[in-house]
Amino acid sequence: MQPNAPTVQGIVLEAARRFLGGEVRVIGASRTDAGVHALRQTASLITSATLPPAAVQAALNAALPSSVRVLEAREAAAGFDARRAAAGKRYLYVIDNGVIADPLRRRCAWHVATVLDVSAMRAALAPMRGRHDFSAFCAAPGRHADPVCRVQATHVLRRRGLVAVAISADRFLHHMVRNLVGSAVEVGRGARGSLWMRDVLTSRDRKLAGPTAPAHGLVLVRVRYPR
Amino acid sequence: MQPNAPTVQGIVLEAARRFLGGEVRVIGASRTDAGVHALRQTASLITSATLPPAAVQAALNAALPSSVRVLEAREAAAGFDARRAAAGKRYLYVIDNGVIADPLRRRCAWHVATVLDVSAMRAALAPMRGRHDFSAFCAAPGRHADPVCRVQATHVLRRRGLVAVAISADRFLHHMVRNLVGSAVEVGRGARGSLWMRDVLTSRDRKLAGPTAPAHGLVLVRVRYPR
Repeated sequence: MQPNAPTVQGIVLEAARRFLGGEVRVIGASRTDAGVHALRQTASLITSATLPPAAVQAALNAALPSSVRVLEAREAAAGFDARRAAAGKRYLYVIDNGVIADPLRRRCAWHVATVLDVSAMRAALAPMRGRHDFSAFCAAPGRHADPVCRVQATHVLRRRGLVAVAISADRFLHHMVRNLVGSAVEVGRGARGSLWMRDVLTSRDRKLAGPTAPAHGLVLVRVRYPR
Repeated sequence: MQPNAPTVQGIVLEAARRFLGGEVRVIGASRTDAGVHALRQTASLITSATLPPAAVQAALNAALPSSVRVLEAREAAAGFDARRAAAGKRYLYVIDNGVIADPLRRRCAWHVATVLDVSAMRAALAPMRGRHDFSAFCAAPGRHADPVCRVQATHVLRRRGLVAVAISADRFLHHMVRNLVGSAVEVGRGARGSLWMRDVLTSRDRKLAGPTAPAHGLVLVRVRYPR
């Protein structure tokens, strides 16, 4: 929820209140910046109503604007909190790497006209895997009490004119994916060498990292929970 | 150009006038309805300026909003008119055939929740190939002096949750693709048999055809010219 700005959380809550009486709460697993997309955000909906999950899903989808859809609904154990229970997340960052920006991708891909060296980007991101202090790639280093995250996977793929960067971790600091991608693009366009990102990581100094990639290329792909 | 509404033609013309003096004209090969997309619209730009095509392309792309891009620019013979010279066009109509409408496709696909029988749609569209009077699939039958078009190809493809209908013809009547798709969807969802569309075509009666598919699923894919 944000004052004076529509949010996915606010939109879902408003839709739920149309058919659920009493107190209703909605907690998303992940707060995403304005402009960021989500394919499979997960949220807890807390209500005293006793509708079956399929009915809640159908009623929500009937009330929601076409920009938001509930893909699945299940009953959770009492006290389940989609944010606290999350064991990890996967993000995808999409780069339109064509010489001319594709108008049909302008809302969901960052246009980088220079041909990116995908192998160099892979090599630069590989040392991010494992448990590290990611302060160097955090928008506001003071904001997180614990700057240590465990990155489980990094992938860089090229398909036709698109380059996609996929990053999975147990948790992410503020702007962490966008900062990692912004730096990886510096490597991909040859402005930095493949080992530079490893040095930036070790420095824990935000000022040494590259620019923050814009929000609109970022997609939350999934939220992982323990079995 | 439309009074009181932005159009691609108007936007390109405005961009061109920023760097080209004298009289400038822009003629698109195809007038598309509001909401229709184009991957490769073709247009003539008439100017007395003598800039090389690559410079015109670069200057246009610098001046255009991100929703419109010039992918290629070439010098044409004097008197070339992108609309009159066109020998054919290919359209793609995209249907989101998932049970739940995909929010990320809401602007470029028509959501049809019923699972479509793609084989039946193929069979229904096949008799459209060849030279026929398409009055039955025209929004305003009186609008076209000549209602005869030659359809060169019809294809129906399914990929994951999407169904795409591709239609190529030497020319199209107003709303013709959207009406053909609207009727093919009637067949695909089992409301009509596979031979129904052939009978509608033969009748030349617009009232017998199915509903018009919405504009936002339609994409002009390419405009064909004689060698």
